[in-house]
Amino acid sequence: MLNFDYAYMMADVVGPKLGVTTAELDQKLEPTRNIHAKLQRARQEGALPFYDLPFQDDLEPLLELAGEISGKFTTFVVLGIGGSALGTSAIARALLPLYDTAGKSSRPRLLVLDNVDPDGIGAALESLDPDTTGFCVISKSGTTVETMSQFLVCREWVKGAVGTTYREHFVLITDPVAGVLRQLANDEGYPSLPVPAGVGGRFSVFTPVGLLPLAVAGIDVQGLLAGAASICPQCTCPELYDNPAYLNGVLQYLSYTKGANINVMMPYSDRLRDVADWYRQLWAESLGKKQDLSGKTVFVGPTPINALGATDQHSQLQLYMEGPYDKNVTFLTVDEQRQVVIPEAADIPELAYLGGQSLSSLLHNEQKATAISLARAGRPNCTIRLQAINPETIGALFYLFEVQTVFAGALFNVDPLDQPGVESGKVITSALMGRPGFEQSRQDVEKWEINAKSRVLTVGQPLIS
Amino acid sequence: MLNFDYAYMMADVVGPKLGVTTAELDQKLEPTRNIHAKLQRARQEGALPFYDLPFQDDLEPLLELAGEISGKFTTFVVLGIGGSALGTSAIARALLPLYDTAGKSSRPRLLVLDNVDPDGIGAALESLDPDTTGFCVISKSGTTVETMSQFLVCREWVKGAVGTTYREHFVLITDPVAGVLRQLANDEGYPSLPVPAGVGGRFSVFTPVGLLPLAVAGIDVQGLLAGAASICPQCTCPELYDNPAYLNGVLQYLSYTKGANINVMMPYSDRLRDVADWYRQLWAESLGKKQDLSGKTVFVGPTPINALGATDQHSQLQLYMEGPYDKNVTFLTVDEQRQVVIPEAADIPELAYLGGQSLSSLLHNEQKATAISLARAGRPNCTIRLQAINPETIGALFYLFEVQTVFAGALFNVDPLDQPGVESGKVITSALMGRPGFEQSRQDVEKWEINAKSRVLTVGQPLIS
Repeated sequence: MLNFDYAYMMADVVGPKLGVTTAELDQKLEPTRNIHAKLQRARQEGALPFYDLPFQDDLEPLLELAGEISGKFTTFVVLGIGGSALGTSAIARALLPLYDTAGKSSRPRLLVLDNVDPDGIGAALESLDPDTTGFCVISKSGTTVETMSQFLVCREWVKGAVGTTYREHFVLITDPVAGVLRQLANDEGYPSLPVPAGVGGRFSVFTPVGLLPLAVAGIDVQGLLAGAASICPQCTCPELYDNPAYLNGVLQYLSYTKGANINVMMPYSDRLRDVADWYRQLWAESLGKKQDLSGKTVFVGPTPINALGATDQHSQLQLYMEGPYDKNVTFLTVDEQRQVVIPEAADIPELAYLGGQSLSSLLHNEQKATAISLARAGRPNCTIRLQAINPETIGALFYLFEVQTVFAGALFNVDPLDQPGVESGKVITSALMGRPGFEQSRQDVEKWEINAKSRVLTVGQPLIS
Repeated sequence: MLNFDYAYMMADVVGPKLGVTTAELDQKLEPTRNIHAKLQRARQEGALPFYDLPFQDDLEPLLELAGEISGKFTTFVVLGIGGSALGTSAIARALLPLYDTAGKSSRPRLLVLDNVDPDGIGAALESLDPDTTGFCVISKSGTTVETMSQFLVCREWVKGAVGTTYREHFVLITDPVAGVLRQLANDEGYPSLPVPAGVGGRFSVFTPVGLLPLAVAGIDVQGLLAGAASICPQCTCPELYDNPAYLNGVLQYLSYTKGANINVMMPYSDRLRDVADWYRQLWAESLGKKQDLSGKTVFVGPTPINALGATDQHSQLQLYMEGPYDKNVTFLTVDEQRQVVIPEAADIPELAYLGGQSLSSLLHNEQKATAISLARAGRPNCTIRLQAINPETIGALFYLFEVQTVFAGALFNVDPLDQPGVESGKVITSALMGRPGFEQSRQDVEKWEINAKSRVLTVGQPLIS
């Protein structure tokens, strides 16, 4: 189904600067077993429910709702942000046609709106017909200011067009018992599905958060889960060298301790492009922490970067090859692709060598060339190779990364499930928006701003407002 | 027209760890004047022609060709990669409708194909009608393997549909005198435009490389140039505190020397999203260098990252707030946006504070809250604030970054115009694709691969090929 090739992560290939030695890996055999035991204990105690999502057997209500929705609308819009949007976007791009096939598919077109920019939302609504548009509102807490603002705007827009039946255009995905959205579902009869307890946004793609919109768009979500389930035994095996999630976690961790604090995720595949974006959240938000589990201040965490092959060979590769020794690269490649052959060109002898070869062969050779060049320059890299892009391999890939991330959390000795650092920005936003109860914060911020010496350089005409 | 607010880059606001002091800025006053003199000398000697592109006065042929093309096709496809694609994509996203308005515009839809993934190109061609599709093939050298492969594939595709008139579907943008594409233009009569001598890909957006496709799509390219020209005096003023390009260059450089080697570009604007992608190439490829100008090995260069506000507050912000002190952030904001008001929601008292406020105000407050939170956590950041998004402000913004980059090249003491690190990958690709003359490289690579110990972990069914 997939391969994990880590030869070029190793010191005997890329040199000792950032390369990992076999001895270093061997030293992690026992710690890996210990972390494994801890994770499985936590899993049994219900603290890591994401582990068991591939085995859920109550998909009927979700599939039924998805079927209903897909019969009613031509476009299905996800209103969500962060973990409520990134997994859906990445999987939709991987498994749905890359180019709009409006009218050609029997399923609604999927549109993920994950920002509150009026230029974005306004343009999106302008391009849609409220009569045939459904919305999926996703917020576990029901208080996510971006999503709730989107919801209010879109609800008004639908109401203005269809009148009293507007509720039929919305599905709410939220906490099973608490919060504003749950209450709305109960009081006003919006259809709804739950985000299971204990599953945080970035681990939620195999809950209704990801599964409902993907199923509406016609993706085989049971295949996704089956793929994840199929890789589970290997990702929950205690032996470092047999477990791809643990092995990559250890390699990434060791490489980080040597200085590779920037981790590039570089799919050589247009369809897998946004997997890197989903992974960015998973890796950054889970591991980027001020405090470790003992409460010590550590300011730790690798910085994930998204890149796309072969495209970014013409943008980022120069830096990866010649810049500071602060990066490693994870490539994603796909064996089975469309067959597109480069034709012979009798009028261009300089290109004769390309004639008759496939674009897929060119793409694969470019990836190989990049991996070898980086390795020879002492830059570690590894490759996850998918046999094909289908629900099973995508489900497996996402599950692999999720397990790798909680495992890496243990190596970094941080809590991979929290995100305390974003609280302060939320408080200040609430204060600036005049939310009741935040008056003191507003005063604090205003005072702070006055003390921060203003330094503004104006270019051209001064700004008006 | 625009503001550059750098208060939160300064040590008296964000603290001494990554913050820059006034004394440090003052110490750069004289070096800045010296670099300025050197740059202007190089410019006068013709070594930096990008500086004068905004003042070109021979746009007629380009506009005429653009007019012809736009009358003939419903889709205009750019075949190019890296600097031949990123500027066009970024400006098109900023200035064209965000959502497909197929049939509603009198101008062709613009499509940028910047990869050789058969899954991408195959799907794109499948969605297009060869009769009404034109192509813009962009490669300065005429040997870019990705672009030339695309060209051969698309030429065959058009030829198969329209027969002998296929040449009318292509425009070639390439070197004015040398190379395969120039020869084709001369021998076979393809229409063509030149990439002016001395302008490298990442500085080429104001040449036909960017201007032709943007003009075809209906963008006011004269406005772009006028905007760039209008900012030129301020970006070529020798005084550090008056020149936004120099000032940001110095701030980025000083912040890098303190440890902020990761530079986040974070537009709070869906339309400006891809500006960060264009900037990534400009900044990474220009400054990421193994050798400095004296030939000393330095392995230097900041790593640019793209992010999008408010979206990535729910993905990357946790890491920016609490991870290592290795980042600074440049925000882009836009004053004038669509007016979308968050409606009152009588049934949701918890959200009453949002009712009647605009999405734009929410987005601006989120940016402000993020900037303040980061500053208070000791993380430097600055904000470039655009009055509005229009050809003039976009032209100015791109010009500002270009000047900032060559200036930063001088601060880092590297050549901002070359990219020697990507050569090795090109050679290996040529070798693997069987290009004549690369037989020895192929043997070298094969030998190297045999010596590199293979380490592959198989997951699920072994891969077939």
